[in-house]
Amino acid sequence: MNIRSNPDKTVPAVTTGPLPSSRKIFASPDAAPDLRVPLREIILSEGAGEPNLPVYDTSGPYTDPSVTIDVNAGLARHRKQWVLERGGVEEYEGRQIKPEDNGSVSTDKAARAFSAYHKPLRGLDGHKITQLEFARAGIVTKEMIYVAARENLGRKQQLERAEAALADGESFGASVPAFITPEFVRDEIARGRAIIPSNINHSELEPMIIGRNFLTKINANIGNSAVTSSVEEEVEKMVWAIRWGADTVMDLSTGRNIHTTREWILRNSPVPIGTVPIYQALEKCNGDPVKLTWELYKDTLIEQCEQGVDYFTIHAGVRLQYIHLTASRVTGIVSRGGSIMAKWCLAHHKESFLYTHFDEICDLMRKYDVSFSLGDGLRPGSIADANDRAQFAELETLGELTKIAWDKGCQVMIEGPGHVPMHKIKINMDKQLKECGEAPFYTLGPLTTDIAPGYDHITSGIGAAMIGWFGCAMLCYVTPKEHLGLPDRNDVKTGVITYKIAAHAADLAKGHPAAQLRDDALSRARFEFRWTDQFNLGLDPDTAKNFHDETLPKEAHKVAHFCSMCGPKFCSMKITQDVRDYAATLNDPNSVGMSMSGTAEDGMAKMSAKFKEMGESLYLDAEKVKESNRVL
Amino acid sequence: MNIRSNPDKTVPAVTTGPLPSSRKIFASPDAAPDLRVPLREIILSEGAGEPNLPVYDTSGPYTDPSVTIDVNAGLARHRKQWVLERGGVEEYEGRQIKPEDNGSVSTDKAARAFSAYHKPLRGLDGHKITQLEFARAGIVTKEMIYVAARENLGRKQQLERAEAALADGESFGASVPAFITPEFVRDEIARGRAIIPSNINHSELEPMIIGRNFLTKINANIGNSAVTSSVEEEVEKMVWAIRWGADTVMDLSTGRNIHTTREWILRNSPVPIGTVPIYQALEKCNGDPVKLTWELYKDTLIEQCEQGVDYFTIHAGVRLQYIHLTASRVTGIVSRGGSIMAKWCLAHHKESFLYTHFDEICDLMRKYDVSFSLGDGLRPGSIADANDRAQFAELETLGELTKIAWDKGCQVMIEGPGHVPMHKIKINMDKQLKECGEAPFYTLGPLTTDIAPGYDHITSGIGAAMIGWFGCAMLCYVTPKEHLGLPDRNDVKTGVITYKIAAHAADLAKGHPAAQLRDDALSRARFEFRWTDQFNLGLDPDTAKNFHDETLPKEAHKVAHFCSMCGPKFCSMKITQDVRDYAATLNDPNSVGMSMSGTAEDGMAKMSAKFKEMGESLYLDAEKVKESNRVL
Repeated sequence: MNIRSNPDKTVPAVTTGPLPSSRKIFASPDAAPDLRVPLREIILSEGAGEPNLPVYDTSGPYTDPSVTIDVNAGLARHRKQWVLERGGVEEYEGRQIKPEDNGSVSTDKAARAFSAYHKPLRGLDGHKITQLEFARAGIVTKEMIYVAARENLGRKQQLERAEAALADGESFGASVPAFITPEFVRDEIARGRAIIPSNINHSELEPMIIGRNFLTKINANIGNSAVTSSVEEEVEKMVWAIRWGADTVMDLSTGRNIHTTREWILRNSPVPIGTVPIYQALEKCNGDPVKLTWELYKDTLIEQCEQGVDYFTIHAGVRLQYIHLTASRVTGIVSRGGSIMAKWCLAHHKESFLYTHFDEICDLMRKYDVSFSLGDGLRPGSIADANDRAQFAELETLGELTKIAWDKGCQVMIEGPGHVPMHKIKINMDKQLKECGEAPFYTLGPLTTDIAPGYDHITSGIGAAMIGWFGCAMLCYVTPKEHLGLPDRNDVKTGVITYKIAAHAADLAKGHPAAQLRDDALSRARFEFRWTDQFNLGLDPDTAKNFHDETLPKEAHKVAHFCSMCGPKFCSMKITQDVRDYAATLNDPNSVGMSMSGTAEDGMAKMSAKFKEMGESLYLDAEKVKESNRVL
Repeated sequence: MNIRSNPDKTVPAVTTGPLPSSRKIFASPDAAPDLRVPLREIILSEGAGEPNLPVYDTSGPYTDPSVTIDVNAGLARHRKQWVLERGGVEEYEGRQIKPEDNGSVSTDKAARAFSAYHKPLRGLDGHKITQLEFARAGIVTKEMIYVAARENLGRKQQLERAEAALADGESFGASVPAFITPEFVRDEIARGRAIIPSNINHSELEPMIIGRNFLTKINANIGNSAVTSSVEEEVEKMVWAIRWGADTVMDLSTGRNIHTTREWILRNSPVPIGTVPIYQALEKCNGDPVKLTWELYKDTLIEQCEQGVDYFTIHAGVRLQYIHLTASRVTGIVSRGGSIMAKWCLAHHKESFLYTHFDEICDLMRKYDVSFSLGDGLRPGSIADANDRAQFAELETLGELTKIAWDKGCQVMIEGPGHVPMHKIKINMDKQLKECGEAPFYTLGPLTTDIAPGYDHITSGIGAAMIGWFGCAMLCYVTPKEHLGLPDRNDVKTGVITYKIAAHAADLAKGHPAAQLRDDALSRARFEFRWTDQFNLGLDPDTAKNFHDETLPKEAHKVAHFCSMCGPKFCSMKITQDVRDYAATLNDPNSVGMSMSGTAEDGMAKMSAKFKEMGESLYLDAEKVKESNRVL
């Protein structure tokens, strides 16, 4: 892993290089052999006795040593050709960048503008533009082919095994197939059950899919604020987050240089980028929600559509008539977007302009295929407020808006809570599926208790795993700094790994085909004392190796047939291997043979003698290891 | 917090002093006013507008500034009097300590012996000794009165509220009352649904109860091994673990000085101590399981009974006929105790001596009221092996043994897995309740995936929270070092806090009365920007404060009405407070009044004017804060 040196302070330095013992490989789908769909192959040690393991790879070209990374130039814009070749779009002179787009920042405090300007594309009237429109028309796009190959991992080779695994889970009515075809992807998108967030202007994108019949995804939030952070840090946070597995990244910047920061992020991001446009709109009226207007908001949407943002959080469900429902809450309205809109509605005593102009918002977003992430502005901010009338009233409105957006041809997902005790989580999932016609659910956690500030990645990881199992399609991470401060690089990593755990635990419980292959490979490595393979098959090889080295630092111990918990002479895994070797002799016709429930004294004595004979020689090996350990 | 200086290297230094903004208070139960039942009171800031919050306190005298801690002398032995006054016991010359009790350690490597020797007590034939025997006879012991008061926390004052909270949960058939009486405790123990692990020789004990109708408990494992660790470290680990909330501690030492280490721990422990006696027995035959004998094991049990160990893990369910069921597993037998017994059974081709001598074990443990923790020696060590025939066959045997132990008058809990994907967790709980007659379940996690070495506190915290909700009475922690190395001080704390989260999330979901009081108090503090109260009400005030200070270090920011995520001019909680102030005017007869769904232009204009008037003055305050922030 390299962190690029950064002589020029205005150029972001980012982390590059492959993960330990990993290489980037590419799948070439039958339906479009020109596509190169990235996977990460974890290379096992010599003598592992099993093939290397391919895993899903979100990290983009940053982990590909054959690609020269230049954040000033941005990533290659392969996808522009896909969009152009299917037609229906025009390149045009985009909206002029205005000083207020960057908070009217003074020249000396301005971040360096991104080097290149790419003219935006937009859809032409009367043409299909969005993935939803193509799907409904029966057209399989390259994005669909790409995500189908990406979801399958090594499944083509593992079909038989995968089907057995699938039968084992409880998917609560999901329809996860054993093998993902482009046609299945198309059908799921056409039904609104999945989305491929993919603004036609995000040409750097490696497409991915969000839906309950696909792998559970995770999102990482980054973004500067009025108080702290810089452009450089945010670009590196994005690269760092996807290195560890973030499937999408939301840029929640609220301070200055907001347009420029987003441009740097987008031009360097292989994953979908989401934003909450009301944050920037608020900056443009100097932080006063009362001064927000539809015109100003619409102009901000156009600005971000042209830049290539893939999904917008839009809190159009915060209706005037719901606001008083929050008055008796313990923690009122905790969503930033929700509270901004609540304030606007009350100040003007008018229905939210996001709700009244929802048709226009759809028409605009459709032209660029920006997906909706319908925001839960009234989500609970504490256990006390979970599943209350305010929350569910808004969810019902989100269901109504989902149908409008679908009618307009837009892709839609729905945001969910928040703070919810375990026994109220499934109610959320069930109601979302019902109200929103199975549109993908995208939740923040939920946190299952309020009492552990500093550990809310864990309080929420519990809830995230559960709601992922119940059918949630994407889990928005929570870092240890939640409620306390802005996450730094370490917090981002901890948040991402925690949510990869939650998402994977959910995939296992749903009976997702092939999910268990990685668990099994790692467990075999663990059982066979292939320490290095155990580290490398894990979500965070560096931490696993460091933890092992704290107790047993020597390289020799990576091949030792014992572990530090028990020491060399007393290791349950070692003993179990003996048991297994012994049990194998039971089926050997040349062996003495035995009935496991047998009680005949003669057979028992023979068995006993045989085992002692075997055991002693096996234990000689263990004793040798023990002796070498004493030299430490 | 003080870590005592340690001039003499053989004297353990331990952490003392109260937690931040906390003081030790004592409840005095009506039924036994001489008892002093400890609670920790979290003192809120001036102007909090609500009372201080009492919480459960496992930390013992170490957090009581009025007690002088001397680890050489051990804690006060208050409980001896309770045992003596109810009679039926005799003091006697205990078993002589033998060189092999400490691994025949040479003089230069021997740990310093504990200063005092206390003659052991044992029960007399024909007398009631165990809590179960007293409970069945209708006798309420001091231990029962003590734990009843301890479980209630502030519930006496909160009954009305608590009952409302209770109605909200899903307890899966548990019977959690709104208020715990000594009689309820007695009845639960008599039914075998709860235990008070309390060896009559552990006079330093502050009794606690384990059962699904009580607060969910957690256990922390400590212990040296052949490879690393020392007596000093282990005593401090125990003190450190209970400081953060461990309800019981297991000493899993496997190396030398094992007897002496345990003596230091017991004499200084206010919480129940559990052990796995087969570990020490194995040390006594030089690590060779084949050489284990019933006599040697029995002698070890007596040794530990006399020392005061409160519960023994006994893997009596690993029967000869089950061992071959593990041969095709991915990870075989991963329990240390289970693999030792498996090896012994196969070597001798005999039924386990723990199973064949189970009656005698019961008779022995009854004399000291050592509780059974019936070990799950065949628990799954990987997702692939979860809920297999080997695991469940053993569980059925544990059910059979539970009934035998109950008949003998012994208290019993049952150990459970391990590695289990989410969809297979509830099956474990349901089967345990059925097979073992509702004896308390005590699980290790379970880990919900195998793919995150270095993060197994999280993979298992997910499973622990869920099985706690489903009815598991005690959760054995897993630290970040699981599978990789021995936990150090930081790992112990991380493990304990993670499991406090899991246990509390479970209590909330079960609808445990009063559990939510702490969440609500913390959420109010959060909403009202009482930063210091938010830190202090959390499970780890130090970490929360440090995280906050990383972003906004100044003391002034602890009273600032904004948080670092959003900055001063853009804070959802601030805006919500405005909304609430505004909503309050709606019920004011002197106010303009309005229907929240009203659309009359006139009313809307009036409302709008009123809000702008209010809002402007409120925002002046926020702007002032913002200005002061610029000075930073």
